[in-house]
Amino acid sequence: MNDNYETLAVQQTINAWQSYNKRLDAIIEKLTEETWYRETAPARNRGIYILGHLIAVNDGMIALFGLGERKYKHLEKPFVTDPENKEADYPSVAELKSEWNKLNGFLESAFSKMTVADWFSAHTAVSAEDFEKNPMRNKLNVLMNRTSHQAYHIGQLIYLI
Amino acid sequence: MNDNYETLAVQQTINAWQSYNKRLDAIIEKLTEETWYRETAPARNRGIYILGHLIAVNDGMIALFGLGERKYKHLEKPFVTDPENKEADYPSVAELKSEWNKLNGFLESAFSKMTVADWFSAHTAVSAEDFEKNPMRNKLNVLMNRTSHQAYHIGQLIYLI
Repeated sequence: MNDNYETLAVQQTINAWQSYNKRLDAIIEKLTEETWYRETAPARNRGIYILGHLIAVNDGMIALFGLGERKYKHLEKPFVTDPENKEADYPSVAELKSEWNKLNGFLESAFSKMTVADWFSAHTAVSAEDFEKNPMRNKLNVLMNRTSHQAYHIGQLIYLI
Repeated sequence: MNDNYETLAVQQTINAWQSYNKRLDAIIEKLTEETWYRETAPARNRGIYILGHLIAVNDGMIALFGLGERKYKHLEKPFVTDPENKEADYPSVAELKSEWNKLNGFLESAFSKMTVADWFSAHTAVSAEDFEKNPMRNKLNVLMNRTSHQAYHIGQLIYLI
C-alpha cells in the first residue's frame, strides 16, 4: 500500500489524455482547411465530422464530472447522436478548432484542481446505488476511456496526412 | 487516501485493455481471410500488417514486465521495425490469429497474478535511476498506453468492415 500509487494513477491518466490532445493539435497544425472536408477513407467519415465528434464527446466530461454546464452541447446532435451527413451545414473548421482549444484549456485547468478522491468518485450519470455495486464507474475511468476513444479516431484522422 | 483506489486503478486499466482486445476479437470474427490483405485506406497499411503489429507490440509487454521470454520476437522486425512491405512473405492470417489468441491468454493469466506493487514498479527498459526521477515509467502506465495504441489501430482496422 502506497499513498503515491493513487496519485500516480491519476497523474499518468491525465498525462496520457494530454498526449493524445497534443497529437490532435499536431494534426490540426498540419492540415489545410480544405483537407478537413475530405473523407478519411472512401465512404468513411470526413475529418470535420471526427473533429466535431471529439469536441462533443470530450465536452461531455464537463457534465459527467460535475464541472458545470457543457460548453458545446449544440454539437451533441450533429456530431454524436446523428451519423455524419455529408450535406449538413456544420460549423466551420476555424470555429471547431477554436472550440477544441478553448475546451482543452478549460478541462486542463479543471482537472488540475481535482483531488484523488474526486477522480475516484462517481461520475454524474451513475446512481449512488449502481456506483456502490461497481466503483469502476468513476471519473478517472471515464477519462482513461475518453483517451482511448480519441486515440481510435486519431488513427483515422492520420489518414488525411 | 484509500487503499481501494490503487486496486481500482489497476483493475480498470486491465479491464480497458481487455475491452479493446474484445473489439479486435470481434473484428477477427467478422473479416474473411482475404479481407486482411486489403488496405485499410488507399496506400495505407493492410489489415495483416496491423494485426502483426499489434501482436508484436503487445508481446513486448512480456519482456517489459519481466514475465519471461517474448513469445513472438520474430514479429518485431517485419511488423514494428520495418514499415509494411506489400511484397513481403508474412506469416499467414490463420497463424497470426492463433498467436493473437495465445498471447492474450498468456498475458491475461500473468496480469491476474501481478500485485498492485508490481504494477506500479518500473518496467524493465527503465534504469533504477531514471525511474526514481520519473515513477510514471511503471508497468501500469505501459498497459494504459498499449491500450490506446491498440485503439488507434482498431480505428483503422474497422475500415475493413
